[in-house]
Amino acid sequence: MKNTFGNSVAITLFGESHGEYIGAVIDGLAPGIEINHDYISHMLTLRRPSGAISTPRKETDEYKIVSGVLNNKTTGTPITILIPNQSTKSSDYSQFKTVARPSHADYTAECKYHGFQDSNGGGHFSGRITAALVAAGAICKFALEQKGIFIGTHVKKCAGISDADFSDLSAQINLVNQKVFAVLDETVEEKMRSAITAAASEGDSVGGVLETAVTGIPAGVGEPWFDTMEGMLSHIMFSIPAVKGIEFGAGFAIADMRGSEANDSFKIENGNIVTATNNNGGINGGITNGMPIIFRTAIKPTPTIFKAQDTVDFKSMTETVLNAKGRHDPAIVHRARVVQDAATAIALCDALAVRFGTDWLK
Amino acid sequence: MKNTFGNSVAITLFGESHGEYIGAVIDGLAPGIEINHDYISHMLTLRRPSGAISTPRKETDEYKIVSGVLNNKTTGTPITILIPNQSTKSSDYSQFKTVARPSHADYTAECKYHGFQDSNGGGHFSGRITAALVAAGAICKFALEQKGIFIGTHVKKCAGISDADFSDLSAQINLVNQKVFAVLDETVEEKMRSAITAAASEGDSVGGVLETAVTGIPAGVGEPWFDTMEGMLSHIMFSIPAVKGIEFGAGFAIADMRGSEANDSFKIENGNIVTATNNNGGINGGITNGMPIIFRTAIKPTPTIFKAQDTVDFKSMTETVLNAKGRHDPAIVHRARVVQDAATAIALCDALAVRFGTDWLK
Amino acid sequence: MKNTFGNSVAITLFGESHGEYIGAVIDGLAPGIEINHDYISHMLTLRRPSGAISTPRKETDEYKIVSGVLNNKTTGTPITILIPNQSTKSSDYSQFKTVARPSHADYTAECKYHGFQDSNGGGHFSGRITAALVAAGAICKFALEQKGIFIGTHVKKCAGISDADFSDLSAQINLVNQKVFAVLDETVEEKMRSAITAAASEGDSVGGVLETAVTGIPAGVGEPWFDTMEGMLSHIMFSIPAVKGIEFGAGFAIADMRGSEANDSFKIENGNIVTATNNNGGINGGITNGMPIIFRTAIKPTPTIFKAQDTVDFKSMTETVLNAKGRHDPAIVHRARVVQDAATAIALCDALAVRFGTDWLK
Amino acid sequence: MKNTFGNSVAITLFGESHGEYIGAVIDGLAPGIEINHDYISHMLTLRRPSGAISTPRKETDEYKIVSGVLNNKTTGTPITILIPNQSTKSSDYSQFKTVARPSHADYTAECKYHGFQDSNGGGHFSGRITAALVAAGAICKFALEQKGIFIGTHVKKCAGISDADFSDLSAQINLVNQKVFAVLDETVEEKMRSAITAAASEGDSVGGVLETAVTGIPAGVGEPWFDTMEGMLSHIMFSIPAVKGIEFGAGFAIADMRGSEANDSFKIENGNIVTATNNNGGINGGITNGMPIIFRTAIKPTPTIFKAQDTVDFKSMTETVLNAKGRHDPAIVHRARVVQDAATAIALCDALAVRFGTDWLK
Repeated sequence: MKNTFGNSVAITLFGESHGEYIGAVIDGLAPGIEINHDYISHMLTLRRPSGAISTPRKETDEYKIVSGVLNNKTTGTPITILIPNQSTKSSDYSQFKTVARPSHADYTAECKYHGFQDSNGGGHFSGRITAALVAAGAICKFALEQKGIFIGTHVKKCAGISDADFSDLSAQINLVNQKVFAVLDETVEEKMRSAITAAASEGDSVGGVLETAVTGIPAGVGEPWFDTMEGMLSHIMFSIPAVKGIEFGAGFAIADMRGSEANDSFKIENGNIVTATNNNGGINGGITNGMPIIFRTAIKPTPTIFKAQDTVDFKSMTETVLNAKGRHDPAIVHRARVVQDAATAIALCDALAVRFGTDWLK
Repeated sequence: MKNTFGNSVAITLFGESHGEYIGAVIDGLAPGIEINHDYISHMLTLRRPSGAISTPRKETDEYKIVSGVLNNKTTGTPITILIPNQSTKSSDYSQFKTVARPSHADYTAECKYHGFQDSNGGGHFSGRITAALVAAGAICKFALEQKGIFIGTHVKKCAGISDADFSDLSAQINLVNQKVFAVLDETVEEKMRSAITAAASEGDSVGGVLETAVTGIPAGVGEPWFDTMEGMLSHIMFSIPAVKGIEFGAGFAIADMRGSEANDSFKIENGNIVTATNNNGGINGGITNGMPIIFRTAIKPTPTIFKAQDTVDFKSMTETVLNAKGRHDPAIVHRARVVQDAATAIALCDALAVRFGTDWLK
Repeated sequence: MKNTFGNSVAITLFGESHGEYIGAVIDGLAPGIEINHDYISHMLTLRRPSGAISTPRKETDEYKIVSGVLNNKTTGTPITILIPNQSTKSSDYSQFKTVARPSHADYTAECKYHGFQDSNGGGHFSGRITAALVAAGAICKFALEQKGIFIGTHVKKCAGISDADFSDLSAQINLVNQKVFAVLDETVEEKMRSAITAAASEGDSVGGVLETAVTGIPAGVGEPWFDTMEGMLSHIMFSIPAVKGIEFGAGFAIADMRGSEANDSFKIENGNIVTATNNNGGINGGITNGMPIIFRTAIKPTPTIFKAQDTVDFKSMTETVLNAKGRHDPAIVHRARVVQDAATAIALCDALAVRFGTDWLK
Repeated sequence: MKNTFGNSVAITLFGESHGEYIGAVIDGLAPGIEINHDYISHMLTLRRPSGAISTPRKETDEYKIVSGVLNNKTTGTPITILIPNQSTKSSDYSQFKTVARPSHADYTAECKYHGFQDSNGGGHFSGRITAALVAAGAICKFALEQKGIFIGTHVKKCAGISDADFSDLSAQINLVNQKVFAVLDETVEEKMRSAITAAASEGDSVGGVLETAVTGIPAGVGEPWFDTMEGMLSHIMFSIPAVKGIEFGAGFAIADMRGSEANDSFKIENGNIVTATNNNGGINGGITNGMPIIFRTAIKPTPTIFKAQDTVDFKSMTETVLNAKGRHDPAIVHRARVVQDAATAIALCDALAVRFGTDWLK
């Protein structure tokens, strides 16, 4: 289904960075879900560039919902979110029309779209499109919270500087959902910001790792093959531009463990079956086991940098040197985390609707 | 679509470990593709347990193709592969009916299937089901080779012991596809085997990392959002039991790089656009760039071990200690690599058919 | 998804008429559904050719279920049904390899599969494949009955001879489900049989109309656009070979009515909202209204007849005259009705699972 | 996928009659397709109510395309069409909030959406939503024409008055595509218009039959099971509000024919295989045979009429009499025909992209 994701709850993204609107259609959400505009705006604000560590492009993300909502409640029919593009400087991008930015999509877009792609501002490949994903995910995330399911993401690593590990999930999810720069250990924020600024001052960029936790998800959600919970989450996470890896629970570290060390023993706590450790990140055999879902993504450094780079002009088929201009983030990891929250919320709403029917979130 | 994967080429898996047959239906492959039985048998042999480092369960995997093939060529209609289960000792598994193996799917199956699941031999969650995936993938992998697309996977790490990195892809893909224990550096095989045996002798198990390379894939395949090449590959890879992470190109290591270091410069070589490095694993913006696709998966240590483990009886809701019996692998990473080859081949055939139509592989 | 149908409950069909097995995989059915083998056999018997009005090809349809069922209950994982092909005379079909039977799929198969199609016995286009659909649908139909949802189909018309209309649905659904030749008015059976025999004696064939009724379906199932209840039912019904039309409620006759005549007034009966008439066949705006679903399909006369027919040899590209040999039905309408029951049951199970979750049928 | 249709080319519809916008997202169209605004406007004009035989609600349908198009060419990424709602009188509809119009979706919407549906102007069930379908279909229809594939629909019957049959397809498709009231026999237009006016003057409504022809479609498109050409076309056609039946080729009339009469003999004409008749409507075994695709739909009389009707108030659960007010069409058959053209174009673009790849329409 290409640019659509989901079985029972499905999202379609559209728009180009410098078009009139970007947006999303989300179909299959239960009727009667409250639309909390403060909640949506808050999440959009967290995604928005801010201060010295982001692109100078500023937009207020004045989204509007033009279908599927009445009196601030979902109607059950497709919800369409539109976000106007306000601050567009297409001239900045004219240089990328035929000269490919290394590690960006300029060249692959050419291979797929044969010169018809909209390259202004990165077109359909712009990270800006994720604003629509965030707005749609905000509706889902708020709905999940009403059912006791909470999602939070922190910057586990940025520019090689590590944040603390999750320890008290409930409190920490609540904490990071309020923070602009989502770290658990307050002392690392300034270090990360400095590292981003330092890279920016050299015309360079940095990457990082995002860690997401989900609490309250019922056991028994997901499928044994293909539409495993990991499979569905990873499928959508790789749509966050810059994600190059995902790992659940102990992730790649589990590869070095022995079974006796990696296995999560079951025990009974307050009448419920829980595990003593959570190296599997809440998923066994593709299906949730009732423990928190934990996963991390690898975010590559922003590809558009201001250092001279060797590249090609794919129209003239000549080698050249690119000196990028324009407004580009020296890091997106701190902004991408709210996109990761949103994508998680959408994938979970879908899996829950498949399992429990379309009214479950009502 | 749950236990079905793919848009234009779709695979459905079925069967339980101790049922009459496991199998797969693969639909959408072009007509006229040669069925090379030696090739399929070879891949099934590579998946099969062998020697001291595997389960003593031995099966010959005498698959048969009962539809979609005539005169050793695909007809274009759904291909059904059946593999009979021969060596089944269900009594070994009676202990897991209500006592959950830590990190296995016994408990999550109960949550999803309410006691109706077939727990004999792990039922539908058994790694044995992957034999059908391998047979289906073998057809796809052979077909891709006729179009100049080659896939190979090696055991990048096992029990903490690392193999060499890919250097000469063409030769090394050819090499690993012939080897039972697929490592690039011959000297590490014995070390890995010894580590597996050592763990087994303690009733324990080990995990590892698998690295896959794909050469010859055309540029321009994949979608910008959701059905990205990474999203589709990761979606299917998490169906390989024990996979807990996936990373493309430099993967998680890219998170610590600066953009100037991570970016893959473009250059022209023999009239073609290539990149100087391949930190993005052949994919930019979700779309192939013509460079080799490179990814790694984290394989957790086999959950069924012979050490005593704390767990619960989910029927009586009591805590208990599990002393597992039966035939279980102390490691599956060396067997899983051919499953990863197969899954890769299936996902690529699908993406190519979406892009170029159903006749492309003919 | 090509040869797969359904969102939450999905069926995949495979097999060729003269292959080793035909079969079906049905995925997404709730765990714990009883498998009633008498019920399945009964439905397969109703599909089987019988007596003078059918093909002399006789098969016992000894299906086996090789996955997804344990102790006669569904496990919740994919159910695979295999039906061996026993009575195959491929030599009868050698004449159709390059000489296209008018109105059959010989020529279109060539256009799609480029000569690689299995033309023996009609290959994948054979009506025989519907035996697998019937077996899968029988599981669904029996499950629906346990939830109070009943499906029945009668031969509304055959060779121009009309059966009575449905009047007392509950009794009549029960009646037709027991009958080999499903008519409501017993006096028409003999007339229809005679007409079939008469056509057969001239080497010709006849068609007819099948009418299906469904009672007990809850209101509120189906989607407003695209996955409307009519859209989903029609999608699957056109897979019954020979169906060339479908109409719901008053169907094409409604085109000649005025609104005041066609509209189904609502009223309250025993505390429930019902309609006084049912010209809409139980569906308004694509969504069930709680009234019986009623639809009819047009079944064309069997295309393989024994009269000389003008046609072409598509290999030599010459015009020729076909004198068909072999075993072919002079009518299939009386056999197709149980296929229509089965297809209806599958589509309804899917729509109900989408609406109410995967456990609903349990 | 609910409110989304298609595999390789997919359309999602959204919007409510009295919301800010209705619209469509169409994804998967090849890059480089020309956007002909005159063509789109022309098709929207044909859908628009006009004169005495339509609702007095007048809108200019000033659509805008906000994504996926650059310099009047498709970019290959999702195309979003927005149509603002201008002339909305929600007060007219307040009466239907709890009092169900017979044969409309008021009551089924309540069953599905539990009171949260937007009932203003029929909400998401309004025929107005089809304006977005028409705009999207217009892009597809124009693109198909550039590849030699032409679609035309005429009012085969209205209020019991029949139009001529198709005879010279090329000329007649061209003719009807220019006409506001699409009939082949000019003399019947006035009769049909008079019949509509007569019904309207009595506060009543009429229905009809629409017949569509497609020329130039290549042979070999469609699947043998489930995604048959008939199955895909019927799936989307039932999304045209008021369609209650569909038939291909000879349709229901074929049920009364003998095989010798119904079968379409093959012959060779100008070096191509064609059929002497076209009772199968260009489709054999679910796959196109290269002959024109012909199908007809039954359009029910508009359910909202101005005569008093028995119905219920589903909130108070009381019987009542409805005297509808507002602006409602006494017939929609003449307007629906362009919706049928559009839906046909979309389904064909999808089937062609599945078969020949995403670049085929370029």
